[in-house]
Amino acid sequence: MNQANKRRQVPEQVSELTTNRLSVYLRCLNTLDELSVQTISSQALAERFHLNAAQIRKDLAYFGEFGVRGVGYYVKELRRHLRKILGLDRQLRVAIMGAGNLGLALADYPGFRQEGFEIAALFDAADEKIGHESRSGVPIHDIKELRRVARKDHLDIAVIAVPAPRAQPVVDQVVAAGIKAILNFSPGTLTVPPNVKLKSVDLTVSLESLSFYLAQGESSGG
Amino acid sequence: MNQANKRRQVPEQVSELTTNRLSVYLRCLNTLDELSVQTISSQALAERFHLNAAQIRKDLAYFGEFGVRGVGYYVKELRRHLRKILGLDRQLRVAIMGAGNLGLALADYPGFRQEGFEIAALFDAADEKIGHESRSGVPIHDIKELRRVARKDHLDIAVIAVPAPRAQPVVDQVVAAGIKAILNFSPGTLTVPPNVKLKSVDLTVSLESLSFYLAQGESSGG
Repeated sequence: MNQANKRRQVPEQVSELTTNRLSVYLRCLNTLDELSVQTISSQALAERFHLNAAQIRKDLAYFGEFGVRGVGYYVKELRRHLRKILGLDRQLRVAIMGAGNLGLALADYPGFRQEGFEIAALFDAADEKIGHESRSGVPIHDIKELRRVARKDHLDIAVIAVPAPRAQPVVDQVVAAGIKAILNFSPGTLTVPPNVKLKSVDLTVSLESLSFYLAQGESSGG
Repeated sequence: MNQANKRRQVPEQVSELTTNRLSVYLRCLNTLDELSVQTISSQALAERFHLNAAQIRKDLAYFGEFGVRGVGYYVKELRRHLRKILGLDRQLRVAIMGAGNLGLALADYPGFRQEGFEIAALFDAADEKIGHESRSGVPIHDIKELRRVARKDHLDIAVIAVPAPRAQPVVDQVVAAGIKAILNFSPGTLTVPPNVKLKSVDLTVSLESLSFYLAQGESSGG
């Protein structure tokens, strides 16, 4: 079976939006578990976290039969299922390309560790940074060492946190090092071969939804 | 008309997802405009940027009649309309709370400026940071000065980039300073009064969709 056929098992469009929501549900279940809540209905889950109950049921039904009639979901069990679906039941090792402010902030971002990602390495080209480490102890390697470190440390995901003009050459190095999943924070379009998954985070989109909200308030006389 | 009634004009659930897509369309139109493309059909727009043509037409129809039969959309004109809908036709002034690695990275993030946001100020409580500025020249103020600076500089949006335990107290200071829109990068739940809009960015969600992709690849025999 070739790559294209494999990919078709879960339609790309559905999986991206659905997995984003599964991540949100997982975050909610983590909170409930910390509060020792044992079971919850889709309705109660939706009300508590401002979600859509029908959407929750539909999203989960896509992956299996998790609810129990008259009970709802068992929090711990559903949490375990979601972690498995999202591939979080084994540790994924993440490299961050670029040890500037953004790279260092991401290396120490507490949310990644909470879900079991291991930030294994930072890479930079600046001599004065190489050999040092982030506040939480992530070592900064010479980017020339990427291929060697990627193999030795089994790096699964690379995060691109370099200035825009450096992004494509760095992505090319990541691909050449055999890393198959890339999270990009750099503005602008990047290209990767079809067997590599690239996901770009555009922080401007979040600011624009606030801008829209402020504009609405004014146009309705606020 | 009270706050609750005003808000109901655009349903919250629809607006958030739709405005995120409008932001993406705007980004595409910027690219086309730079390339001197004058008109484009929804079909061509969708193919070029891996979007959904029917969704584009539906999203735009919600705000007006922008397409011309047999021509498609005029790039410059649609770009101008989208900027107006998203409230980007006037400059919004943004404050960043916290001048650590994340705050400094956001202060210098080029995408914000490209869309007309002005990063006007950083705020921190650490004496050794106050009075300095970010690489791009954003001044770092004492957080005690927030209320005064917010009025003087007409700050519209606050970005929360402080460690999780400091997030709620800082949000309370932002609200007390009269800022009505907050973008939060801190993990954990925050509360704001109903007349303040809070949007949280969870960077873990992006990593998890890559994790899901990697897990799919393996389970299908990759």
